[in-house]
Amino acid sequence: MKEAVIGIDIGGTFTKMGIVDRQGNMYAEGSIASDKTPSIDDFIMELHAAVEKMKASLKEELNILGIGIGAPNSNYYKGTIEDAANLKWKGVIPFTDKITRVFNLPSVLTNDANAAALGEMIFGGAKGMKDFIVITLGTGLGSGIVVNGDVVYGHDGFAGELGHTIVKPGGRECGCGLKGCLETYVSAPGIKRTVFELFAELNVKSELRQYTFDQLNATMISQAAREGDPIALRAFEITGEILGAKLADAIAITSPEAIFFFGGLAKAGELLFKHVRANLEPNLLFIFRNKVKLLPSGLTDKNTAVMGASALIWKEMDKKR
Amino acid sequence: MKEAVIGIDIGGTFTKMGIVDRQGNMYAEGSIASDKTPSIDDFIMELHAAVEKMKASLKEELNILGIGIGAPNSNYYKGTIEDAANLKWKGVIPFTDKITRVFNLPSVLTNDANAAALGEMIFGGAKGMKDFIVITLGTGLGSGIVVNGDVVYGHDGFAGELGHTIVKPGGRECGCGLKGCLETYVSAPGIKRTVFELFAELNVKSELRQYTFDQLNATMISQAAREGDPIALRAFEITGEILGAKLADAIAITSPEAIFFFGGLAKAGELLFKHVRANLEPNLLFIFRNKVKLLPSGLTDKNTAVMGASALIWKEMDKKR
Repeated sequence: MKEAVIGIDIGGTFTKMGIVDRQGNMYAEGSIASDKTPSIDDFIMELHAAVEKMKASLKEELNILGIGIGAPNSNYYKGTIEDAANLKWKGVIPFTDKITRVFNLPSVLTNDANAAALGEMIFGGAKGMKDFIVITLGTGLGSGIVVNGDVVYGHDGFAGELGHTIVKPGGRECGCGLKGCLETYVSAPGIKRTVFELFAELNVKSELRQYTFDQLNATMISQAAREGDPIALRAFEITGEILGAKLADAIAITSPEAIFFFGGLAKAGELLFKHVRANLEPNLLFIFRNKVKLLPSGLTDKNTAVMGASALIWKEMDKKR
Repeated sequence: MKEAVIGIDIGGTFTKMGIVDRQGNMYAEGSIASDKTPSIDDFIMELHAAVEKMKASLKEELNILGIGIGAPNSNYYKGTIEDAANLKWKGVIPFTDKITRVFNLPSVLTNDANAAALGEMIFGGAKGMKDFIVITLGTGLGSGIVVNGDVVYGHDGFAGELGHTIVKPGGRECGCGLKGCLETYVSAPGIKRTVFELFAELNVKSELRQYTFDQLNATMISQAAREGDPIALRAFEITGEILGAKLADAIAITSPEAIFFFGGLAKAGELLFKHVRANLEPNLLFIFRNKVKLLPSGLTDKNTAVMGASALIWKEMDKKR
């Protein structure tokens, strides 16, 4: 019988899942709402029902080995989700304990950026690499850092929070309670904040001035930049410069072979990356210069987060063999 | 027969060596000049003679298993010393190849901060820790970062250069060619530069104003601070603040259990560390707060660099067992 795992990605609004083999083939997919079920135990029962439905849709019988889960504020060592701002369930939730009890399968949990890094390593562009970084650019900035072929979890299971390093002391308010965090500048909402700062700072005309703060989003800014809008272009320049400078720090610490970009804002491509590159190299110590590749994620499939969660449990299975 | 290794620390002026067992007992010590021998091959022959002399002084016969070397700009993977600014020998030197040929023993090389980290793990205060950072504060700022029980060497063998991350864009000139590197502010010469900046900025009286730039050193600044000199005290405050903010970044990336401080400037103790601590915690994401211990190095022996180099080769021996 073929072997497969279940990958689950828990987001603020939706929870997506899939059944994936070691080669990255997806046999079935599913999705439930994350924000409609205030009780975590009820949510896990819904998840179980959705997985059973997914399994029932399979055309062949598979030997399911385990469950990998990507979720915000996750502790790899303890299997807990702790005080996640974007999720309904507050406090410290013993998530893998609950999952394993209900599903009767081994389960492992990490944050979505670490899962993305494992997805990149096992199914994507980082195959064969032992030292690399994955940056997820979406509603926040996540980072998964791989050293010596394994994700850096750190002493407490929470390592890899590049998004919450300070780039401007006393700067923009962050959802985490700090001010001036990288993700308040470099993320989908971050570039929007920069656009609004530029409205105030510059007199130049811009199509974007017609939108309210609530109306505008990163996709509209990318589109405007492609059409030559000067505010949108300058916003990408600023965003890329800030990201480039901070990535230089991460390179000095871990010296990766490549940095992969992933998520909504990463789709802006060269609009953003040319500025990242331009401000990265001059901030690097000479021994690191012109060595680090900046690459789009090699996971082109729509369900990259589920692939990452699957990779997480495959990695655990590989460790045991 | 008891087993031991040879540890060699190559500095700009002196090269120190010792014979050390797995428990950290040092059986013999030696030292030669580093800066008097322009030819690397001649230097290695001198080193060999000094090691033979050290071995001849032993009171019991030891089974010497290998040689560990700490040196600036060292590449762990290749065993090379590459364009080290403080050493006589330029270009890329295949150092371990030469050592192994002359000594007929396995040898391994890394930079002095990585060696210090291994010394801390095997003989010092980090015994049993799997995730920690060692910061060496001397003529420069070195960092050895340990993740999952092993030093982070990175893709190319050069990882762990926290001293060359930028803290002030366009700031002080660094020996590496960049401007505003952490070590231009936080190191023995760094705090001296801060004192001279404060001479210009403040009108307050200070004993230190009587010295020229060439006369003043970090030990004198520590002494003045202990006696309540306002410029010296302010210099420690600034130095600690800059270091605290940058360590917050390193914590967000690797989430260590502890940070150990090592080297000349670290001897200032609480004069410096109280300011590091005060500016570290407010820069940390809540999940990292009040978790990370700031500790003095647990290696109190004078020959800590030689102990680190010995730990490096013991670590390799342990990997093979």
